[in-house]
Amino acid sequence: MNFLSDTTAPAHPALIEAISRANEGFAPSYGNDALSARVEARLKEIFETDLKLVFTNSGTAANALALSVLSPPHGMVLCHDEAHIHRDERGAPEFFTGGAKLLPLPGDHARIDVAAIEDALAQWPQDFVHAPPPRVLSLSNLTESGTAYSPADLAARIGPAKEKGLHVHIDGARFANALVSTGASPAQMSWKAGADALSLGATKNGALAAEAVILFPSVMDRFAELQARQKRAGQMAAKMRFVAAQFEAWLANDFWLDLAAHANAMARRLADGLAHYDGVDLAHPVEGNEIFVTLPDATAQTLRDAGAGFYQWPDGSARFVASWATTEADVDAALGTLGQ
Amino acid sequence: MNFLSDTTAPAHPALIEAISRANEGFAPSYGNDALSARVEARLKEIFETDLKLVFTNSGTAANALALSVLSPPHGMVLCHDEAHIHRDERGAPEFFTGGAKLLPLPGDHARIDVAAIEDALAQWPQDFVHAPPPRVLSLSNLTESGTAYSPADLAARIGPAKEKGLHVHIDGARFANALVSTGASPAQMSWKAGADALSLGATKNGALAAEAVILFPSVMDRFAELQARQKRAGQMAAKMRFVAAQFEAWLANDFWLDLAAHANAMARRLADGLAHYDGVDLAHPVEGNEIFVTLPDATAQTLRDAGAGFYQWPDGSARFVASWATTEADVDAALGTLGQ
Amino acid sequence: MNFLSDTTAPAHPALIEAISRANEGFAPSYGNDALSARVEARLKEIFETDLKLVFTNSGTAANALALSVLSPPHGMVLCHDEAHIHRDERGAPEFFTGGAKLLPLPGDHARIDVAAIEDALAQWPQDFVHAPPPRVLSLSNLTESGTAYSPADLAARIGPAKEKGLHVHIDGARFANALVSTGASPAQMSWKAGADALSLGATKNGALAAEAVILFPSVMDRFAELQARQKRAGQMAAKMRFVAAQFEAWLANDFWLDLAAHANAMARRLADGLAHYDGVDLAHPVEGNEIFVTLPDATAQTLRDAGAGFYQWPDGSARFVASWATTEADVDAALGTLGQ
Amino acid sequence: MNFLSDTTAPAHPALIEAISRANEGFAPSYGNDALSARVEARLKEIFETDLKLVFTNSGTAANALALSVLSPPHGMVLCHDEAHIHRDERGAPEFFTGGAKLLPLPGDHARIDVAAIEDALAQWPQDFVHAPPPRVLSLSNLTESGTAYSPADLAARIGPAKEKGLHVHIDGARFANALVSTGASPAQMSWKAGADALSLGATKNGALAAEAVILFPSVMDRFAELQARQKRAGQMAAKMRFVAAQFEAWLANDFWLDLAAHANAMARRLADGLAHYDGVDLAHPVEGNEIFVTLPDATAQTLRDAGAGFYQWPDGSARFVASWATTEADVDAALGTLGQ
Repeated sequence: MNFLSDTTAPAHPALIEAISRANEGFAPSYGNDALSARVEARLKEIFETDLKLVFTNSGTAANALALSVLSPPHGMVLCHDEAHIHRDERGAPEFFTGGAKLLPLPGDHARIDVAAIEDALAQWPQDFVHAPPPRVLSLSNLTESGTAYSPADLAARIGPAKEKGLHVHIDGARFANALVSTGASPAQMSWKAGADALSLGATKNGALAAEAVILFPSVMDRFAELQARQKRAGQMAAKMRFVAAQFEAWLANDFWLDLAAHANAMARRLADGLAHYDGVDLAHPVEGNEIFVTLPDATAQTLRDAGAGFYQWPDGSARFVASWATTEADVDAALGTLGQ
Repeated sequence: MNFLSDTTAPAHPALIEAISRANEGFAPSYGNDALSARVEARLKEIFETDLKLVFTNSGTAANALALSVLSPPHGMVLCHDEAHIHRDERGAPEFFTGGAKLLPLPGDHARIDVAAIEDALAQWPQDFVHAPPPRVLSLSNLTESGTAYSPADLAARIGPAKEKGLHVHIDGARFANALVSTGASPAQMSWKAGADALSLGATKNGALAAEAVILFPSVMDRFAELQARQKRAGQMAAKMRFVAAQFEAWLANDFWLDLAAHANAMARRLADGLAHYDGVDLAHPVEGNEIFVTLPDATAQTLRDAGAGFYQWPDGSARFVASWATTEADVDAALGTLGQ
Repeated sequence: MNFLSDTTAPAHPALIEAISRANEGFAPSYGNDALSARVEARLKEIFETDLKLVFTNSGTAANALALSVLSPPHGMVLCHDEAHIHRDERGAPEFFTGGAKLLPLPGDHARIDVAAIEDALAQWPQDFVHAPPPRVLSLSNLTESGTAYSPADLAARIGPAKEKGLHVHIDGARFANALVSTGASPAQMSWKAGADALSLGATKNGALAAEAVILFPSVMDRFAELQARQKRAGQMAAKMRFVAAQFEAWLANDFWLDLAAHANAMARRLADGLAHYDGVDLAHPVEGNEIFVTLPDATAQTLRDAGAGFYQWPDGSARFVASWATTEADVDAALGTLGQ
Repeated sequence: MNFLSDTTAPAHPALIEAISRANEGFAPSYGNDALSARVEARLKEIFETDLKLVFTNSGTAANALALSVLSPPHGMVLCHDEAHIHRDERGAPEFFTGGAKLLPLPGDHARIDVAAIEDALAQWPQDFVHAPPPRVLSLSNLTESGTAYSPADLAARIGPAKEKGLHVHIDGARFANALVSTGASPAQMSWKAGADALSLGATKNGALAAEAVILFPSVMDRFAELQARQKRAGQMAAKMRFVAAQFEAWLANDFWLDLAAHANAMARRLADGLAHYDGVDLAHPVEGNEIFVTLPDATAQTLRDAGAGFYQWPDGSARFVASWATTEADVDAALGTLGQ
């Protein structure tokens, strides 16, 4: 009954098996192996476009690397006030970009208000030498509140940004969950919606440690710089085939979507179950594998006493995260502790 | 017959098995797991001292993080002109430190000349506001030429640095190979010789991706800063237990030393074999798992034609690297191509 | 009738004369001259405390240098959303600190709400490795809206920050104007209120280019670092005596306060005059040398047509800035254009 | 008899008078004034080309800003081992570039050996992701040993660099002295020789504090970035007209060249005079306003006792610097202390 985070979940055994299979003989290091090439080819199919990518071992590194090729040090990144890049990465974006500024914007359910984007673009012009101009819009999908941007939601936010010449980054630490939730295709949820770069995360969805920065054709000319920055950040792992192996297994036969669909279903099951109890209210719509609910103190205590791990969120709600490893039995056991 | 690099070698299957064993149920993320704690305890035994550590996924990250807590942005790091941190990390030390300067120093066989250290310390004083003062001496052991510093070698170099108040970092990407080669203990080769921090590498010696920055008691007060920088660099992996698992298996029962001893022996076997051929001369003493030899063109061509991978080194020699996975048969096959 | 900014005003001729007097023979460079020492001594008298300082040629440099010795790269600076360091310095604080985050906080009239400080301190804890902890509170006095913090206002904001161990920086680009406006002493408005460092600006108040970073005793141990960073930022001018000469003349016989008093009086005169016109309302209290008023379009146009320079401010008001060089005749001429 | 440095010299009174003249009424701030525009126009005439420029208040800032628009953070700057940017700027180039590496190269009399450039270019390829590629060649003219590169000397060094696609920066802290010494034109000594950017220093040659970064047409597309970086570095002075005024007076009627010619002549007079004494030998050719001589201990002591200021240089020689303010009487008085 551990709902603390999808980072506390184990890796899916199939990915460890893939690592074992990849551990055959000698292979070129630093990403020049055949497995890495196969993953790139597979992602081109999945995203229905040409693209370039590098692997990293954390979502923080993927986000910060992506931003570092999209914004100069003297630029600015627009993001939600709750965004992981703003709240939970210890200033990694500022570090990797060489000091770009992150401007936190408001919006319900961790979706940036369209008006807030327009207002920021008006307040911070492109050609005023005294202030950092907005150069990147970063959207998290799933958001930090477990909600999803649909392709239309993305378009509404990306439109005004593109008009001013900004680049667009998607933090896809839980991208698969958003795909399943919206039913949209990877392409629709990224480059077709105007995104230039995507942080694609597998770690929270079954991998041991496998993240990628994907550059779509609009910014593929920056790939050499991305590789230089990857190396310089200590993110160009020597035996990269083991990261590639995880991605290959994860992407094969829509396995990544199956894992995400399961996690989403478990979150839905928990949300539906909790809804029956007095005083339990959803703080945000459930559109992925996370639920945020306000819990009466007694209810929270009962769950905690029974060992059902969850986090008290800064906004006062309780966050429960389901993962590929969450079972119906886990959910039902948690609900069971609350009685009839 | 792949002698290109120990990074092209596979991981030892025992470490993948350890990962599988660690993949049991939920575990605290970001290094707060029980396995990580056990590795710390084990390293305290091995190094016969209190210490603190963080894991990284590359040696580059380990080196750069270590340097970033030992030098301010306005300080300087003394290193060998051939040092990995100077030549092969795309400026990661400059990046992580916020712009500290690396001063390359000469010395035969990639061991820094004692006189060069003394000269640099004289030329770059501690209290001259116009120039970056030396703040760190970084020594690689094994060196980039495959030689080892003995404890006495270390003392001769660290002594003058310590007199001026410098910190000392050891790049131990091949630390186990140096231990085996010199017969010295981990403590003798690190803090007892005056080192404040050690980059301890397992990846080149059997791991998939497992490196550590170890802070010895002299600088343990910087551990909170090290963790902050680890996070900020995207090096605090979510599912850290899988890195810890590799280290636990690697360190158990001196397995790391056995792997290194094997690699060293294979390098020795190759060096001894090559010595019989006309025109083949060692460029550097063989004191680890790497050999550098000058090869007649025809000899080099014969080896290459037979598929024996090695690198042409910038100094004109040919570098052959043995690893835990190199077999006597590999060595003998390579030698065999050269005829009687 | 130029009210655009106190940066468009000329320098006071007395300061140029002081430069001429300082231009006698050879003098030690880089701040080691006798004039610089005399300014330090004079500031100790004025601030009634020991202190250390460096000169810079811009307020941006002074602020960014001050912040860079008060916050690590992985820390955070709390400031008002309108603060010059956030809005008007092209990310200089992020650059000089190596990527520290600025957290913009709300508050009427550009004074940070006490509750906003408390809320930020609660939301961003000191010991959460995943997020930058607040390390500095930066207050501008005068604020960006031309209001002043009194010693009591400062205490209310600095108290909660000090409880959490933050350092406090004052952006005193218009510090003299705030002193005159509040009647408080330099000590009361700085270290006695809990400030650790002060950016003291003379340029907007009569100098050609003369700014200083002052460290009070609580952080004087960082002076060597401040000097190193000053040099490294290209702010250690070779012929520093010419900056010191400006400060000496400016500080002599309360000249700086006389200049500020005049500027404040001119702003007051303009505000009082404008108050007689229909539809002209103060957007912020006038507590220094700046006034912000909402102007009917026709009124604004009349002023502009008559050549009375002012800025349209982002909040919709019109900003008029008076300086030491603004005359009663300038003010009356501007008012005169509006008729009876 | 002060020969310590041209930075200890006073400013030429004509430049202070120019400042006084510029101090008339209000003027646009931050470089948008008419004087700044006139200086740009004048420099176009002098350099016989289109160009863009920003002013700074120190040569360190000028150099570091120039390098920051010529090299990415993950690039490398080739310079002489004695270069000011390497030895005397406290890591400012590393700071401003975001961590680019400076590679110190050898060469007699502080002129980089052509072979050393070629060797560095061979050792550090452009397309090796693991190492910072050379992106800038920085040449100081005058050099740190007081020698000058002629246009042919420049061409010999810039040629190989250009072949590899490097940008070329000239540190012209004493550019006027080099012009006078070689008789070459400003164009010949800069863009016609292949330079992309020039740090043009006036401070050591009569100004109070006036330096410029000049971008020639080959890199003029980076001007907006240069301005952003100038602002972000706190180098966009509010009342820029006072820097512009210095440049205008300095450049008018070849005044800058007259001042440099005088300084060079005084250095020559001192060198010629010293040559008559036993045991006094020039360490470097005298090609500007600096002389480096080996002095017998007794001779050095006699000079010091008589109050003739000079620096003991790290290479064992004594450095004497003449400036616009050095008189024949000063020189003769120094020589006079040594007797017949």
